Amino acid sequence: MTAAATHPVVAELIERHQPTLTRAVEATTARDYWSPYPEFPKAYGETGQADGQAAFDALLGSVFTLDGQPADGELVSGESSPYGIELGVSYPHADVEALIGALELARPGWAAAGPTVRAAVCLEILARINARSHEFAHAVMHTTGQAYGMAFQAGGPHAQDRGLEAVAYAFIEQTRLPERASWTKPQGKRDPLTMTKEFVPVPVGLALLIGCNTFPTWNGYPGLFASLATGNPVLVKPHPRATLPLALTVQVAREVLAEAGFDPNLVCLAAEHEGSTIAQTLAVRPEVKLIDYTGSTQFGDWLEANAQQALVYTEKAGVNSVVIDSTDNYRGMLANLAFSLSLYSGQMCTTPQNLLIPRTGVRTDEGGKSYDEVVTDLAAAIEGLLSDDARAAAILGAVVNPGVLGRTVRAAGGEYGELALAPRVVTSPEFPAATVRTPALVKVDADKPDDRAAFLGECFGPVSFVVAVESAEAAVELLGRTVREQGAMTAAGYTVDDAVEAALVATCLDAGVSLSLNLTGGVYANQTAAFSDLHGTGANPAANAAYCDGAFVASRFRTVEVRRHS
Amino acid sequence: MTAAATHPVVAELIERHQPTLTRAVEATTARDYWSPYPEFPKAYGETGQADGQAAFDALLGSVFTLDGQPADGELVSGESSPYGIELGVSYPHADVEALIGALELARPGWAAAGPTVRAAVCLEILARINARSHEFAHAVMHTTGQAYGMAFQAGGPHAQDRGLEAVAYAFIEQTRLPERASWTKPQGKRDPLTMTKEFVPVPVGLALLIGCNTFPTWNGYPGLFASLATGNPVLVKPHPRATLPLALTVQVAREVLAEAGFDPNLVCLAAEHEGSTIAQTLAVRPEVKLIDYTGSTQFGDWLEANAQQALVYTEKAGVNSVVIDSTDNYRGMLANLAFSLSLYSGQMCTTPQNLLIPRTGVRTDEGGKSYDEVVTDLAAAIEGLLSDDARAAAILGAVVNPGVLGRTVRAAGGEYGELALAPRVVTSPEFPAATVRTPALVKVDADKPDDRAAFLGECFGPVSFVVAVESAEAAVELLGRTVREQGAMTAAGYTVDDAVEAALVATCLDAGVSLSLNLTGGVYANQTAAFSDLHGTGANPAANAAYCDGAFVASRFRTVEVRRHS
Repeated sequence: MTAAATHPVVAELIERHQPTLTRAVEATTARDYWSPYPEFPKAYGETGQADGQAAFDALLGSVFTLDGQPADGELVSGESSPYGIELGVSYPHADVEALIGALELARPGWAAAGPTVRAAVCLEILARINARSHEFAHAVMHTTGQAYGMAFQAGGPHAQDRGLEAVAYAFIEQTRLPERASWTKPQGKRDPLTMTKEFVPVPVGLALLIGCNTFPTWNGYPGLFASLATGNPVLVKPHPRATLPLALTVQVAREVLAEAGFDPNLVCLAAEHEGSTIAQTLAVRPEVKLIDYTGSTQFGDWLEANAQQALVYTEKAGVNSVVIDSTDNYRGMLANLAFSLSLYSGQMCTTPQNLLIPRTGVRTDEGGKSYDEVVTDLAAAIEGLLSDDARAAAILGAVVNPGVLGRTVRAAGGEYGELALAPRVVTSPEFPAATVRTPALVKVDADKPDDRAAFLGECFGPVSFVVAVESAEAAVELLGRTVREQGAMTAAGYTVDDAVEAALVATCLDAGVSLSLNLTGGVYANQTAAFSDLHGTGANPAANAAYCDGAFVASRFRTVEVRRHS
Repeated sequence: MTAAATHPVVAELIERHQPTLTRAVEATTARDYWSPYPEFPKAYGETGQADGQAAFDALLGSVFTLDGQPADGELVSGESSPYGIELGVSYPHADVEALIGALELARPGWAAAGPTVRAAVCLEILARINARSHEFAHAVMHTTGQAYGMAFQAGGPHAQDRGLEAVAYAFIEQTRLPERASWTKPQGKRDPLTMTKEFVPVPVGLALLIGCNTFPTWNGYPGLFASLATGNPVLVKPHPRATLPLALTVQVAREVLAEAGFDPNLVCLAAEHEGSTIAQTLAVRPEVKLIDYTGSTQFGDWLEANAQQALVYTEKAGVNSVVIDSTDNYRGMLANLAFSLSLYSGQMCTTPQNLLIPRTGVRTDEGGKSYDEVVTDLAAAIEGLLSDDARAAAILGAVVNPGVLGRTVRAAGGEYGELALAPRVVTSPEFPAATVRTPALVKVDADKPDDRAAFLGECFGPVSFVVAVESAEAAVELLGRTVREQGAMTAAGYTVDDAVEAALVATCLDAGVSLSLNLTGGVYANQTAAFSDLHGTGANPAANAAYCDGAFVASRFRTVEVRRHS
């Protein structure tokens, strides 16, 4: 136990959160369903939703407070809700030197606190964020365009799950060696050699979290909590269009750290205007030893090449494919795919983009279906799912930014290929100003060079390609090649043929992408569950890291040994 | 269990080595003394030493055989024993394309074998190497200059320990997730969602081991076995002056792999003449995803900067310091330091270089000792330890290469500063042609700029500096600064003062170097024991990796998940 553990607030936190930590540690090896954070909005009290809305409304137009964080007097604003409401939140700005200096000053106390104290403090941060899940849901909704239900789950409890998972892994990694061990080496007839050895996990330095536009909390929490729980101060640089969810996170973290007797500057916010190059500046600072990044391949590659003083964990772009060979549940397959393509307007890094369908057709429980029949039926399934505007809006959310909107416009104009399903403008009853579009389905042929140019690159957003391929084998081969060349966060397949399944599994293992097979119910290729599914593999160009495994955490600290004669 | 596990040879290996693997896995968390490989030469049978000598003699002047490895007909030779005997071994040469191609071809079968099979095969390789420890000892002795006793232990059982440790960590890491798990998520009144999930560890690609001149096996085995046990084919590029020990290792590995039904080209040798740039060529090949390197800072830095497609694990140069503040066992301290500085002529990356002694003197159980008295007494302790040529040769070994010899010549000439102890030419009774030198002790002052230039850089070999410093506090501060700026593999201290000890521990934790405190017996600052001590920390410029921890192994494979409805 370290000195920090005797602080009364800390001692209470350790005791209070021990059962959750123990359970989380067990969950990492069991891989069954588990979460301490309920995903049903009603679990957060009768007035939870109204309270969250009120708290969010109170933030609108305000100056965000981060007491004690360095500030240069400037204010940063500019977030605009994809739902058309005015956010008007402005954030205190600080220069790089001041932020780095504050984090460095805060570093030693947290480094000395040890794994148990740090885990307890992190769990308290997560518990307080959890209690405010409705407020976070509004913040996520109005920065990312996610519909409220998704913003609540993915931006709230599911993001908290991923944060907790990182804390659990950090605790496991840092406590693999005993704090103290005796070493006795026999020396034949002479007295044995005896030593006492202490093993101390030491953090590596400052951590930088570079947030993304679409999932600021879900993609941000793994790195944030992995770094913090291993003792590294964290500078949070949010996406300029999705600052609020991470600003709230930083605010809660600072509040808990201060109460526990630590310097709140262990977690600072680097809010910036769109177009700022602060991320490039911070990424190559010698003090910065860890970087977590989610976003474009271009900047991810830049970070990997240039931030040589740091360990860089990236999640970049990819092209996700689905092989459609055969199924014993045709309706279930169509419904599952329709939902996968529609959820959050395909703006997930895990959304399937290319549906690979043999020209010879697909065997189903409803008989053989030609390529065209499958395409027509899938288009109809999507249309059916999204026929009602209110329901459509609740699934689609809103288009997050002009880049995505541009692609739906190009798809609608036939630029990517023949349309099997044209995107439709949806009017959200609740937010008439929101930009909501249904997915486009584009027909392409794997053997036509022009078509290949269209579907073999990432086309992020509500545009998917129904790709005619020679055979199931060609589909599997194309999936593998796409993963190796473009990267992929997910792969999926539908087949009742053992040989096709075996080829698909072998290809996914070799190309390094995780595979969802024959999903026809309430689990979707684009969703992963913390403590059970890994998000990404780190084994293909889409990402060099996975949430969460030992590799994601093990290098964020080092072990220093002190030994002496017993 | 994978298909490979049913191969009769493999099945037998799994059964035979299971107890060792289980015990090794336990040892990684207990950190007590443990080894399955006896370190006493006599444990290897009555005729062990003679058999080893005969096997080594049979290699002299021979063409080394690596059946089935690509070869272009050229032969590589050029090793010369620091003991003056002619080695004359020549090794088959192959071009880079052929080697990479052979490793790639071998890759899939080993990738599919799974962690259990790979661990068993690796343990068999180690067991066969262990049985030939005397032969390896000769090979290590006559390439590195280590004395036979040290070449036997450090090049044999202790190196095997480090290899086994890596295999144990690899097994632990790859089996943290279950092979298969059920996932059941309650859905209120509806049926729960249920999934079956498989987790498959997949290797990342080809591994390159770049060996060093002084400890080809001890520094080579951790990376070799960590990569191989996680499923990656390994190309072994030995130091041109220390090829034989790794060539024998490759030969044994290939033999075991072939017997177990695998392609022996999973482990290949890239023997090269001195001056070859093959390491640079190999290091940036796109197929190479893992690099383990021990050697100069210059090339280590080059690898870290240029081999961007690979994970690079380096152990480079450093400057190790000892703070001498006070002791309750003056004679024990002197004897311990004398041995530390003399062992293998200071040619260990862990040998103390700078002994930091307050100008105000050192409190001891024999009363206060002035700086000059400590220096004189230490010089006398070294002279006493090495007064007999035979005994001296058995401790010092031989000077490994002309670079090291040059430094002892410069030290003898007073180039580094005033000599407190001049290096002495020792004639080895057994090998009169061997180049053997006792350590030089150079007096310097921490506050004189010219002196600082001499001792603040690495001076690899039998040259140590007795550095006069203002106070114990100044010594601790200088140790910390040296670690941060130059890197260090070890730190040591002598003090009976609680405040000095606390400052020393705090400084070592912050600078990221492991500390040996008050060593006065048979444990030396330059020695670490596998399964108990970590070698290096990865937290300072001397190395980015440690033998062995989770971080050394966790990123050598990735996990791919396959999930489906139950």
